[in-house]
Amino acid sequence: MPSENIDWEALGRLRNEVLAANLELAARGLVLYTFGNASGIDRTSGLVAIKPSGVPYAELRAEDLPVFSLEGKLVEGDLKPSTDLDTHLHLYREFAGIGGVAHTHSEYATAWAQAGRPIPAYGTTHADYFHGPVPVTAPLSDAEIAGDYVLNTGVAITRIFASGAIDPMAVPAALVAGHAPFAWGRTPGEASHHAAVLESVARMAYFTEALHPDCGPVSRVLLDRHNSRKHGATKTYGQG
Amino acid sequence: MPSENIDWEALGRLRNEVLAANLELAARGLVLYTFGNASGIDRTSGLVAIKPSGVPYAELRAEDLPVFSLEGKLVEGDLKPSTDLDTHLHLYREFAGIGGVAHTHSEYATAWAQAGRPIPAYGTTHADYFHGPVPVTAPLSDAEIAGDYVLNTGVAITRIFASGAIDPMAVPAALVAGHAPFAWGRTPGEASHHAAVLESVARMAYFTEALHPDCGPVSRVLLDRHNSRKHGATKTYGQG
Amino acid sequence: MPSENIDWEALGRLRNEVLAANLELAARGLVLYTFGNASGIDRTSGLVAIKPSGVPYAELRAEDLPVFSLEGKLVEGDLKPSTDLDTHLHLYREFAGIGGVAHTHSEYATAWAQAGRPIPAYGTTHADYFHGPVPVTAPLSDAEIAGDYVLNTGVAITRIFASGAIDPMAVPAALVAGHAPFAWGRTPGEASHHAAVLESVARMAYFTEALHPDCGPVSRVLLDRHNSRKHGATKTYGQG
Amino acid sequence: MPSENIDWEALGRLRNEVLAANLELAARGLVLYTFGNASGIDRTSGLVAIKPSGVPYAELRAEDLPVFSLEGKLVEGDLKPSTDLDTHLHLYREFAGIGGVAHTHSEYATAWAQAGRPIPAYGTTHADYFHGPVPVTAPLSDAEIAGDYVLNTGVAITRIFASGAIDPMAVPAALVAGHAPFAWGRTPGEASHHAAVLESVARMAYFTEALHPDCGPVSRVLLDRHNSRKHGATKTYGQG
Repeated sequence: MPSENIDWEALGRLRNEVLAANLELAARGLVLYTFGNASGIDRTSGLVAIKPSGVPYAELRAEDLPVFSLEGKLVEGDLKPSTDLDTHLHLYREFAGIGGVAHTHSEYATAWAQAGRPIPAYGTTHADYFHGPVPVTAPLSDAEIAGDYVLNTGVAITRIFASGAIDPMAVPAALVAGHAPFAWGRTPGEASHHAAVLESVARMAYFTEALHPDCGPVSRVLLDRHNSRKHGATKTYGQG
Repeated sequence: MPSENIDWEALGRLRNEVLAANLELAARGLVLYTFGNASGIDRTSGLVAIKPSGVPYAELRAEDLPVFSLEGKLVEGDLKPSTDLDTHLHLYREFAGIGGVAHTHSEYATAWAQAGRPIPAYGTTHADYFHGPVPVTAPLSDAEIAGDYVLNTGVAITRIFASGAIDPMAVPAALVAGHAPFAWGRTPGEASHHAAVLESVARMAYFTEALHPDCGPVSRVLLDRHNSRKHGATKTYGQG
Repeated sequence: MPSENIDWEALGRLRNEVLAANLELAARGLVLYTFGNASGIDRTSGLVAIKPSGVPYAELRAEDLPVFSLEGKLVEGDLKPSTDLDTHLHLYREFAGIGGVAHTHSEYATAWAQAGRPIPAYGTTHADYFHGPVPVTAPLSDAEIAGDYVLNTGVAITRIFASGAIDPMAVPAALVAGHAPFAWGRTPGEASHHAAVLESVARMAYFTEALHPDCGPVSRVLLDRHNSRKHGATKTYGQG
Repeated sequence: MPSENIDWEALGRLRNEVLAANLELAARGLVLYTFGNASGIDRTSGLVAIKPSGVPYAELRAEDLPVFSLEGKLVEGDLKPSTDLDTHLHLYREFAGIGGVAHTHSEYATAWAQAGRPIPAYGTTHADYFHGPVPVTAPLSDAEIAGDYVLNTGVAITRIFASGAIDPMAVPAALVAGHAPFAWGRTPGEASHHAAVLESVARMAYFTEALHPDCGPVSRVLLDRHNSRKHGATKTYGQG
């Protein structure tokens, strides 16, 4: 995209939102040192802004966030992007409704990912945000790891949603087996919010199993009821 | 209630107390984002003030708390109430001695609720506040969930106290199966205080079972002794 | 003790030390609300200063700490003492080398107490401070609970040290079954320091058992070696 | 080393780096009271600066850090060094590539050490920093404990790396059985950074086993892939 075709005002807004989403990850204690990253997309232009790689959260500035096309071409910025960029871009290409992605190594969600287990919907906190279990990918094959590993991480995520017929807007997070969680939302801020709630839900599910090893999930009726309180036409939560 | 019949000074005091009780939930780390809510009742007028739905704790103002009659009629305020309002109102109607209710998704108490288990009285910290196990409701039926769900949540709570002949002033909290805890007290502040102690008690009971899987509760004699140190005619705790 | 016989300067120093020891419990996150208490003794006069009952830590002032004789006679102060006073006094009477006592409901140490289990010496952190397992009392009998309960709590502690031939200066803490820990030291500050280390040791022992359910304690040789690095004639730790 | 041969500017830089590394341990919550210590070496001069024994972190000053030759001769400073000095010196003598060492009793890593278990590589967070399990030493023999105990602690570490043909630059930490972790790096700051990541990895491995008791490690291919993203010629992480 030639520089004169860029809507600089829209890009500035996007970078500010992405900066705030990254700072939210740090403020909520979801990231250690430079771990983790959040990104956002401007669907009009198709531009994606993302955290630069290895930069401490306290030093992030909006204008330093590198910007890429949806196909991964650098459009603007001097810093190298998060090494997870290609996972983010794949999610934006495949999940048309999302506007932000957040990746952390938050400790309980990561433990579920390392254990290779989906997080069951054990209660209404889960149901309020995730309309069913938070799925875990299959382990990547050796060829997928040796090949375009970061892209393939995204492919593993979208594959589990496709094969399970899961709506990514209804279950806005996934666990990558042996790795860590990715969360998303309509905006970068919502993606980070979902990453924070996911960690709380992961903790409570962990505690629940310790207290009741063969605990079953909440009923489908309760799952639907709570999810519909926060989302869609029947939403009653909030002031909107 | 016509506006000219409202005791505005009493209502202002109530709102201030309810605001403080809500802020206490946030200060004690019992709530994430806009989760949770506290309310209070002025027993003279029967008016109930409650947290508005979906408003961040840091932005709460006393005058923004919506006010309702005990039957759920809006009396004053522009913001929509917590979606849990009908649970609170039911508790005020059924438990005559209470003046405040606090609801959180604090993580250990919620895990006990998700596991569908009452919290046993494993020690004197528990006994100081809860004169017996903290009960858990039965799961709501599909009809109860599909019907007046929020009210039915309150009904499930009062039903377990009635069927178990539990005095709600002696055990000022309950776990809603698959959902989370509700706590109450003579004032809104006491309700939040009880919510905080409940979480600590829930944590310690969780740890106790890991250390001693078939641990029994403290003896009835010790339970009575500790409870009476903090409550009633034989109270020795505090300066009062 | 007639007021004119009181060494007011020494008493002021004692109260300041006891105030600092109480504030340390709060600063280290060992106490919730008004839970817990620390005291100190001036061995010259036999006077004991202790936290008043039910006063928030943030509101404590040195001059408000009530002062008692070793036999429990009020010597000075307007506020009621901690309800645990008689446990503290018994420990001072029986353990001649101690100058301070700290009591908390810190959550992991309390869980061990609720589980009725001594904390094994699983590592050198433990050995640095506690020269052997931290013992747990037997449960109090119904008669002991119904009788002079607070005093009998202290008796249960000193009984386990006597029956086990444990030196209270070498193992400066105990768990009261079904209740919580007491720690002590040569000064009030050391008592609170030991209460904080006890909680850390209790956490690590809890985690250790989860990782290695039939883990044995460290060897006697390692226990002795580490303990002697911090204590006694062979001490090498610190600048003293 | 005669004082006139000391490069005082280089020594000042070293002390500043070691001070910062020590403060990092405190800032990350890895140390309680005066527990733990970090050191650094100037490979040109062979001088080692280390935390003085028993000094609170808040009171540390760069000029107070005692300085030793690689053989343990005091070169400069009035304060006694950490009692763990001889372990640090041994690591500097044996691991030629390291420039800093950090020792903590951080609670989860210590629990693995107390359990006598290496930390398996359960995920990519681990792989990013530790190219294989974090090894645990064999327990020291009674003779080793009774003899030059602190030196022998270092010998136990280097022995496990030698016998396992582990590259200390690829796995920059070890657990001392029944004791606690040591971490190292090319600089004092990197050593403390590794100590903080080790604690996070230790927590996540603990949680992973609870969720999946017979979980296996990540594949060798994934371990290699992630490690090479952060290290060596194929490094893609960061701006460097």
